[in-house]
Amino acid sequence: MRIKSIPDETISRLFPYMRALICLIKEKTCIVSSKRLAEICNINATIIRKDLSFFGEFGKRGVGYDVHNLLEKIRSILKMEETKKVALVGAGNIGRAIMSYKHFPSEGFKIVLAFDNDIKKIGTETNGIIVKDIKNAAKLIKSENIKICILATPVSDTSKIVNMLAKVGIDAFLSFSPCRLNMPENVKVTCMDFSTELAKLAFYSNNEIE
Amino acid sequence: MRIKSIPDETISRLFPYMRALICLIKEKTCIVSSKRLAEICNINATIIRKDLSFFGEFGKRGVGYDVHNLLEKIRSILKMEETKKVALVGAGNIGRAIMSYKHFPSEGFKIVLAFDNDIKKIGTETNGIIVKDIKNAAKLIKSENIKICILATPVSDTSKIVNMLAKVGIDAFLSFSPCRLNMPENVKVTCMDFSTELAKLAFYSNNEIE
Repeated sequence: MRIKSIPDETISRLFPYMRALICLIKEKTCIVSSKRLAEICNINATIIRKDLSFFGEFGKRGVGYDVHNLLEKIRSILKMEETKKVALVGAGNIGRAIMSYKHFPSEGFKIVLAFDNDIKKIGTETNGIIVKDIKNAAKLIKSENIKICILATPVSDTSKIVNMLAKVGIDAFLSFSPCRLNMPENVKVTCMDFSTELAKLAFYSNNEIE
Repeated sequence: MRIKSIPDETISRLFPYMRALICLIKEKTCIVSSKRLAEICNINATIIRKDLSFFGEFGKRGVGYDVHNLLEKIRSILKMEETKKVALVGAGNIGRAIMSYKHFPSEGFKIVLAFDNDIKKIGTETNGIIVKDIKNAAKLIKSENIKICILATPVSDTSKIVNMLAKVGIDAFLSFSPCRLNMPENVKVTCMDFSTELAKLAFYSNNEIE
């Protein structure tokens, strides 16, 4: 799919739509209006209609969207028809919390490989996942054909690990490392940097916003 | 400060600039060019100059920015002249990992209060922080005059907690709860939703980007 013209914000909202649709299916709802979807997702109905129109999904005026069809369509856009296998590097506090993150199974993600370079962490188990030696990461990630990796590594190691993993096919990183990464070409990164986000909130906190 | 016209992206980059300036001070660098700052931060020099111009900081053409002055200015903009006190609600896996996050002290943040409603967690200690009963949150947060709160709470509890805390003065939330929150007026939230971020990465992974 050519995705030049689809705004990043639209892509960001597809997963919340998917969540809402899964809830609606559990409630045995077959048709949903953009208004109802707006209430569930806490997103403006006009934005929802615009977002979905990017993918040729318009619903029926005055009726709404077919819940099953729309879910299938969004799953296909996000390439999430099957459980998405994810690797993790760094089994410290953050890494282990991610390994235990209870929403992943129901939301279509599974951490199938976890790595560290610390001899004390290698061989330990969290939530059924055994931490393996980072030295074996290239071989194992390649053989599992994993494309997405979560990084919970120290700043000093992160760049080296990114370059190593990009060579074996990882093209998307979710990074908890508090550094700005210089990514190889065609590799996407999302940084979850706690201090930067808190600093932004500090700026807005008690500030006069017009 | 009136902040209507300052883009959110500019605010997001101030903390990385602050980090870089602190490193430069440690290296005893007094003057830094936007080019050098660009290399350290992995941000385009033109963007840096534009960002800083919002705050009336232009540097000297051909010389650069005074590192100490610029750091002081950014600290003041972010209201981070002193360590920023933060509260945390939810002492599960994510909450405890956040309580142990080793970068906070050097980056100007301190979690001074942590709460949970689970009797098994109340009274436990992580990284020197004792988890307190959520019932005492309003009183303690008010008396510490805390404005920023990290939420690592179950989806079912989050809205109720947000409304309770907003009433006692919290006006900025960093939420790890995977739900879209309907915020009270003048309250800012940043959501760190792992599944949504992974789903976005799944979309871009192996996709043809023009």
